[in-house]
Amino acid sequence: MSLLVVGSVALDSVETPSAARTDVLGGSASFFSVVSSLLGPGVRLVAVVGEDFPEEHVALFRERGVDLAGLERVAGRTFRWSGRYLPDLVGRETLDTQLNVFETFRPKLPESYTDSSYVFLANIDPGLQLQVLSQIRKPRLVACDTMNFWITGQLEALRRVLRSTDVLFVNDEEVRQLSGRHNLVHAAAAVRELGPRKLVVKRGDAGALLFDEAGIFWAPAFPVETIIDPTGAGDSFAGGFMSYLAHVDDLGPAAFRRAMIYGAAIASFCVEDFSLDRFRSLQRDEVLRRCHAFRDLTRFEEVTL
Amino acid sequence: MSLLVVGSVALDSVETPSAARTDVLGGSASFFSVVSSLLGPGVRLVAVVGEDFPEEHVALFRERGVDLAGLERVAGRTFRWSGRYLPDLVGRETLDTQLNVFETFRPKLPESYTDSSYVFLANIDPGLQLQVLSQIRKPRLVACDTMNFWITGQLEALRRVLRSTDVLFVNDEEVRQLSGRHNLVHAAAAVRELGPRKLVVKRGDAGALLFDEAGIFWAPAFPVETIIDPTGAGDSFAGGFMSYLAHVDDLGPAAFRRAMIYGAAIASFCVEDFSLDRFRSLQRDEVLRRCHAFRDLTRFEEVTL
Repeated sequence: MSLLVVGSVALDSVETPSAARTDVLGGSASFFSVVSSLLGPGVRLVAVVGEDFPEEHVALFRERGVDLAGLERVAGRTFRWSGRYLPDLVGRETLDTQLNVFETFRPKLPESYTDSSYVFLANIDPGLQLQVLSQIRKPRLVACDTMNFWITGQLEALRRVLRSTDVLFVNDEEVRQLSGRHNLVHAAAAVRELGPRKLVVKRGDAGALLFDEAGIFWAPAFPVETIIDPTGAGDSFAGGFMSYLAHVDDLGPAAFRRAMIYGAAIASFCVEDFSLDRFRSLQRDEVLRRCHAFRDLTRFEEVTL
Repeated sequence: MSLLVVGSVALDSVETPSAARTDVLGGSASFFSVVSSLLGPGVRLVAVVGEDFPEEHVALFRERGVDLAGLERVAGRTFRWSGRYLPDLVGRETLDTQLNVFETFRPKLPESYTDSSYVFLANIDPGLQLQVLSQIRKPRLVACDTMNFWITGQLEALRRVLRSTDVLFVNDEEVRQLSGRHNLVHAAAAVRELGPRKLVVKRGDAGALLFDEAGIFWAPAFPVETIIDPTGAGDSFAGGFMSYLAHVDDLGPAAFRRAMIYGAAIASFCVEDFSLDRFRSLQRDEVLRRCHAFRDLTRFEEVTL
């Protein structure tokens, strides 16, 4: 089924304790669309880049069969983010954010995108998320991501987005901020009252939790042996999750749990290299093998006495 | 099968963001032995208390059928710990530690304890752990816990303990400190080379990981709705883990995974009240129900494409 993402396509500069990269391909929509293309071509990308955006990155999207009808190229500089990771490779500080061409972006969807079934509104201004959503006729599943910045500064617009959202992706701080509750179970219940009947709480190296009508499901983070750069892991998770659902086109509770594992597997590859580099060579069967490894990681027999 | 624990019996003073308790029953061996008694009487307790130790706490141990032949009462004050939890109820600072009667404790096991099969050396001076271990004739399974303080100050004695240890319980900072490796998978492999063929890494509200010859197993932390006081959760986990193994008397890899879940279930009850209070009323069937809830929390079908 058709899958659309709106989000950032960026040039990232990343420092980790052991290395650094400048102006590499980044942005939520980049990770999401490249990851999603592993299950087939045609992922619809809505984003904007500047005149300085390297042609080689466009070529990567094109190779993967990403639908670029919604990728605008305008005068000005591409969105830039730079950050530095702490020695634990979990915490990070943002050094600089330059919205650049994103400052004036008003997404106008190509007519061919308006029948999209699966929609992911990546972490951007809720106003933009609403603009995109209003142009899609009858989405089957709407998922969105957000962050503390919008919860603080654009709460009313964000609440409107949430009322039309089926699946919300946030981290544990954000779910607490959004609900005003500290306990995760209570916070999740309160956020689900705002609209999204399914809530995915991303907890970094502790994994991710799905709260929905079937209860709570915990997908661990795969214990990877090589962690180079965690940038994009959350968007890769969402990309895996959404593309899996769009691929199987099944919205039953068991499919959502499998989507969590597929997303967690994808995210575990993301951190193994800088930027989107690990996804350049990643094959479907590697992802499936890691999904099976998740089974080994979590399998236990019933406890009796 | 017989189960022995050596560790602290303490009077704790605990501050949480919402309440405080002074001089309540605490200590690793208290949590361990009371938790273990849920699966039957006869848990052998090796510890020391002072003249000020309230008789009501001894009565609790006795009610639970804890074997008190190894509980010494000597002149002086009982071991005391006080701490304050941060608002997240995960981080904490130790405000005061008074070794008191523990300062001169030289454990001499009752003859009836020397045939113990399952042994837990709780987090105390590795020198004391060695003294206890040397008095047990032929243990079937030796587990131990330790902390940064001993890794820094008593590394040689600790290494001797580890050479005789089958299962080591540590948190993620400690496994990194002990191995000098940051990546958890590499750190775990290095620590397993020091002796313990099984390593349990306790990660608080992220759960606990078992590294052994069967691979890696991740037991999540149960998403509890009421978190009052996390003190003792790690010792309760170990108590559940070890008492389950001693109860089923099975050292196969599947039993260790079930022991992880049983331990995680027990730990999830510990945090629901101050001190050992939740364990005063806890019944076996409640624990089994929570073990089943862990199944719901982690169950997923195979991912195929």
